[in-house]
This record gives sequence, structure tokens and C-alpha cells, in this order.
Amino acid sequence: MHKEILEEIGEKELINRLGKFMPKNQVSDDCALIKTKNDNLLVNTDSLVENVHFIDTNICPQDLGWKAVVSNISDLLSSGSKKTIGITISLILPARTEWIWIEELYKGINKALKEYGGMILGGDCSKGDEKIISITALGIQGELELRRNACKPGDIILTTGIHGLSKLGFMIQNNINLDNNVSLNRELITKSIQHFCRPKVYPNFLKNLLKTRSNKKLRKIGCTDSSDGLFQAVQDLTLASNCKAIMNYEKIPKDKYWPQGDKWDEYYFFGGEDYELVFSLPKKWANNLTKLDKNIYEIGYFVNGEPSIEFKDKNKNQLLQNTPFKHF
Amino acid sequence: MHKEILEEIGEKELINRLGKFMPKNQVSDDCALIKTKNDNLLVNTDSLVENVHFIDTNICPQDLGWKAVVSNISDLLSSGSKKTIGITISLILPARTEWIWIEELYKGINKALKEYGGMILGGDCSKGDEKIISITALGIQGELELRRNACKPGDIILTTGIHGLSKLGFMIQNNINLDNNVSLNRELITKSIQHFCRPKVYPNFLKNLLKTRSNKKLRKIGCTDSSDGLFQAVQDLTLASNCKAIMNYEKIPKDKYWPQGDKWDEYYFFGGEDYELVFSLPKKWANNLTKLDKNIYEIGYFVNGEPSIEFKDKNKNQLLQNTPFKHF
Repeated sequence: MHKEILEEIGEKELINRLGKFMPKNQVSDDCALIKTKNDNLLVNTDSLVENVHFIDTNICPQDLGWKAVVSNISDLLSSGSKKTIGITISLILPARTEWIWIEELYKGINKALKEYGGMILGGDCSKGDEKIISITALGIQGELELRRNACKPGDIILTTGIHGLSKLGFMIQNNINLDNNVSLNRELITKSIQHFCRPKVYPNFLKNLLKTRSNKKLRKIGCTDSSDGLFQAVQDLTLASNCKAIMNYEKIPKDKYWPQGDKWDEYYFFGGEDYELVFSLPKKWANNLTKLDKNIYEIGYFVNGEPSIEFKDKNKNQLLQNTPFKHF
Repeated sequence: MHKEILEEIGEKELINRLGKFMPKNQVSDDCALIKTKNDNLLVNTDSLVENVHFIDTNICPQDLGWKAVVSNISDLLSSGSKKTIGITISLILPARTEWIWIEELYKGINKALKEYGGMILGGDCSKGDEKIISITALGIQGELELRRNACKPGDIILTTGIHGLSKLGFMIQNNINLDNNVSLNRELITKSIQHFCRPKVYPNFLKNLLKTRSNKKLRKIGCTDSSDGLFQAVQDLTLASNCKAIMNYEKIPKDKYWPQGDKWDEYYFFGGEDYELVFSLPKKWANNLTKLDKNIYEIGYFVNGEPSIEFKDKNKNQLLQNTPFKHF
């Protein structure tokens, strides 16, 4: 049995052992090789730090591995990646880390790669005070260039799903006090934990976008993901695209069992880690898409103006005074 | 004045500020875009962890930034990268980190990129207990494929320079007790500190390899870098190529002021972080290259046999009993 793996075997041997989770011939060299065919590539780096992004006792390593991959794939997708080439993993582990933890982490990583495509290209492992999983993902740019700076006044703001669930899942898993006056629906609890532990990305997104495009000349659309919360996503779009967002509170999709109240609105808008896409389309395209895909919702529109967010219902603007998203 | 930067402004604002060190349009999006033209790409990830790879008080942030880039470029070069495309940076910083430290780090990063090519493609910044700089570098595979597994029995083992200097520089910078019976030459001290703080890679390496190739069909040669020490490099080559290395102690290039003795041999062979290339060539090619390039040295040869290292002078084999390289 290998407990306290880095203390016992050292980094070098650990990297050799991790070889079993990786495709042959990528492990035993200084670099990994990627073949390209006149493609444009997308590259993204994202780290999960213990006690900042996760608490080791509250998420199992397999879920953590899954999540580390999905957060990167979500960024690729929100730039229009049509295929994930692969990932490199930089792993920092305390010397006392148990081998079973590392194995489970890689199981989760490989499960997510199996689900969404891509392979482990290589990586690095070092000793450190706290666990850190830093992933760099490479994808192939598809026909549609999704960019934060491509929103236009007049565009409709849309999103691929319901927000706040991951935050609720986090609070349940971490035994954080919820609103005492509210009794949570069982189905909502299960779904929220699922969203927190095994977030998903939206696989048909690009396909349906292409299907519903009315004008083949339209190749650039505004998009980001809601990894830092729905508000942060909309704010990032307004800042990069230099326009103003008007959000329609009434249209925002909530889980049917999601409780009412300011606290719950805060979880919804500032929760983060939902990995839904937040994007903008010309009106016609938006209509076509929401007709085809019932999981995509209109939530507002962009207008000319200083980068900012307002609610159509002015009473809701007090929501914007809340503190911005901080990782759990 | 911005002290304790993460405490004061948070991660999001820090990433915005880091924008000034990066090319425009790469910062404000989820991914960076890389254009390729039927190239094969090389990708490599390497991390520097505080108190494992560096001690904050003993290396200035500008040197650290330089070193973080060079260690990655060295890996690219040792796989035959003809051009560095760029790097992504995952930065973990304690909340109390001062802004000046971060600025200096990025100055060092950009100096190294200016020297060796490549740009900052993107990155990520998080709070953590200790400083960690994790870099993923992307390069373009050149005509010669340099691989750990391409050494052949009969090949000559060569290296691009002198080893041990970085280790000595580290010991001087960290006030570690050196051999009391030895008084170090001033020139050696300066050179060693330079090697430790600002390691270089060997820019003409690929050009001279191509110039001296006798047979255009030869496209794959055995190579790695000595980032983990000369012994570890040779061992990695023997393991990946499944052959035995015979090293010639007499031929190993030492600094003219390098002291004699077992301790100094240990620093030389196990020191690490010299970023010299260790590679193998057929005899004729090796002869052509060492005639053209006086900074390249023959240090042994490969023979058939179990992966292992032996000295030609059997008396020197006791050196191999020493503990393998561990990062400073």
C-alpha cells in the first residue's frame, strides 16, 4: 500500500506511475507532440487551489478531476472550440498525499476526457503545501468565433441553462447554513449536488448555433461562460464589447423548486461554477435558436451605453449592489 | 502604493492589471488563439514552487520569471522546437504578495521571451499559501525530432556545456556551507550565480546540428536537457532508449576553476538546473559537430545492454552510488 506517496517515492517515480493514466509515448519525453492541419488553436489555463476553489474533505478526488477538466473545456467551448485536442496537467501535492487520492483524481480527469474528448498530453508534478490542479487545455477553433468582445447593441442575451445550482450544491456539501425558513425540495438538493460535483458542458451548443444561423457571413458572436457567476459573465461581455446589458429578471430561468427571496437571488446571480454559456445573438438568430433548443433562454439584450448592467424592472437593480463573486 | 495586492484588489482586478504585460486582445477572453500552418506543435508544462524549487528571499522575482520561462524553453528545444509560439502562465500567490514582486516577475518573464522568442498567450491567477509559477509553453517542431527514446548503441553522447554551476550558484546565494578547504575563484563564483539566476539555453544548437548532418535521412536523434542534473539526463536517455551509457570522466567538461573532490563531483553530476542539452549522435555527425562548435563536448557513448550508466574508468563508478537529484 502506498500512503504518503511523495514522501515515499519522490516526484520522479510518481510521474512514472502517473504514466498509466496517459497515452503511451507522451510520458517519457520532455514535450508532447500535437499534429495540426492549418487549424487555429485555442488555449486556456485554469487552476483549482485547495481551500480557495475546493475543500479537500468536501469533494471527492474523482469529482475534482472531472471538474478541473470541465472548467477548462467550458472555456474552450465558450470561444468556439469544435474539438478538444488535449490537456496538460500541473499537479502540486503535499508530500503526505495518498496514492489512492491521485488515482481517483486521474479517474475523474479521464472520465471527463472520455465524455468530452481530448487526451492527457503531458504534465508535471511537484511537492507543495496545498493541493493544486492546474490544467492547460488545447482545442481547435471551429467556424464560429465566440468572443467576449463581439456583442453588439441590439443583440439578444441568452444562456444555456439554470444558474445557482452549483453554489447551492457547494453549500449543502459544506454544511453551510441555509435560509432556515425554507425547506428544500429533495430533487433540487440532488440536482444541485450533481451540478457542484459533476458540472456538465452543453454538447450541442455549437451544432445548434450553426443550424439556426440565418446568414453564413455571421461568424463572430459574443460569448463567455458563467464560471464566475452569471453577473460576472454579463459584466465581462459588457466590458469587452463596450455596451450596456439590460437584463429581464422575469425571463431568467430558475429551477422550478428554487426558493424566492433576496438571498436566493444572490446565490443565483453570484454563485459561480455553473459553466453555462452566456452569449449574444442578433434577434432573428436568437429566435431560431430558442425555437430549436428548449434549453436555451433569452435573458435580456444589449443597448448602446457605458459598460454596465441594468434590470428592465428597476426594482431589481438593488441586486447589483451585492458583492461580486468570490470563489467559494 | 499597492502592497498586499490580492488582499486589496482581488484576483479579478489583478488579472486585469497583469494585462499590461500581455499582448492586446489575448487578455480579455476565455482563450487565446494560435494560428498554425500544418505544423506539428510541441507542448510542455513546468512549475516552480516556493520552498521546493526556489526560496523567495534568495532569488529576485525578475530572475525567477526569467528562469520559469527558460526551463520551459529548454524542454521545447530538447525536443527540437524551431520556434517558441508562446506560454500560458498559471500564477498562485499568497494574498500578502506585493505588487512590485509581481511586476518584477513579469519583467523577467518578458525579458526571457524577448531573448528567446514567444509571447504570453494567457493565464490564470489564484490565491494560495505559497508562490507557484506554472508555465505551459508551445513551440513548433523543427525538422529534427529530438526524443529521449532515439539514442542508439554506437551513438556518441554529447553535451552543450558545463554542469554543476547552477548548483554552486544556488549554494552561494543560500549561504550553504561549502567545502572549507577550498577557496573559490572569483570568476567561478560570478559565473555560478549567473547560471543559477539567469540560466541560458543554447541558441545555435539546432542550426549547427542541421549544418553538420551527413545524411539528410537522419531526422530523429536522442536528446533531453539536464534540468534534473547530468546523471538524471543520461539515465532518462538510457531508460527511454533501452541501452547502456558508458561515460568518460576524463572528457567531461568542467569549469577551469572547478575544485577537485568527491563533493564537487556530486555537485557536478547531480546538481541540476543547468539546462544544458544532453544528446546522442552517430560518430560521424558527432565529429562534424564538435569540430564546428567548440562548446559541444563528447562525454561518452551508448552500447547494447540493460538501461544503466557506467564510467569507462571503473574507479569512478562509486559516484553513481550518490543520491539522485532532488530540487534544491
